[in-house]
Amino acid sequence: MTISVEAFQAFLYAEIPMVEYMQLKLCEINTHSIQALAPIGPNINDKQTVFGGSSSALMTICGWSLIKSQLEHHGLHNDVVIHQAKTRWHKAQTDDLNITAALSDEHDWDKLIAQLKTSRRPVKISVDCVVHNQHNEKCSSMQGGFVVLGQNT
Amino acid sequence: MTISVEAFQAFLYAEIPMVEYMQLKLCEINTHSIQALAPIGPNINDKQTVFGGSSSALMTICGWSLIKSQLEHHGLHNDVVIHQAKTRWHKAQTDDLNITAALSDEHDWDKLIAQLKTSRRPVKISVDCVVHNQHNEKCSSMQGGFVVLGQNT
Repeated sequence: MTISVEAFQAFLYAEIPMVEYMQLKLCEINTHSIQALAPIGPNINDKQTVFGGSSSALMTICGWSLIKSQLEHHGLHNDVVIHQAKTRWHKAQTDDLNITAALSDEHDWDKLIAQLKTSRRPVKISVDCVVHNQHNEKCSSMQGGFVVLGQNT
Repeated sequence: MTISVEAFQAFLYAEIPMVEYMQLKLCEINTHSIQALAPIGPNINDKQTVFGGSSSALMTICGWSLIKSQLEHHGLHNDVVIHQAKTRWHKAQTDDLNITAALSDEHDWDKLIAQLKTSRRPVKISVDCVVHNQHNEKCSSMQGGFVVLGQNT
């Protein structure tokens, strides 16, 4: 990656204030997945467990970041938006969040990038996101449908 | 309502820091629905539109608040949790959020309350949430499945 995890996190903090408030910390980005952490502190609810709206927002930003970081790595600045999500909360979580986002299907980024460079047609990409607690138990999950918009649209 | 909108909002701000950060403002609560507002400021993204994670978190807390406020109104302190959601983002939003949450089905609260007082069985309640922009266009929507836990469980 020519874009470091630190640089991409700084971009998120500068552009999306909620991400900074939730204290999302990106750990690793590769072509297929993202690993991140967030403390329970700013994301807590009345039951001293993780607020469901926080876990879904954290999964949303991780899924989005996986796609956006790949585009930027290839020099493309297309907008990426979420258009639908199916979310499940499996278990109340009382500790910090380990978030993973991974492409639902294998994507040939080189092919996708070539397509985006020559066409204005939007491209749909599905991402599977999961939050585990510190005992590696699955607490929430989300299948997110994202769209890479064509350039100049 | 014996619980005022102001008192319920103060409870949310005290217990769920994300709600205060997002500057959710409850406007009206009745037995069937909730109306609320949130400014785009803390909920903005890199495209100067509403962050998808913010709109889903705001719909989540409004749906939850609709159920929780009814229980509190009837003197019940059962925990309420979200267990699943289907969310759609229809349109990029560039201004403040008008949030509505309404029961998906008619519920007889008196019957439900009586049931919760005598049984420890959890009760499922579905809520339809919508975010409109300041031109009354639908920008995002969520069908949320919530569970009222039995007391002492």
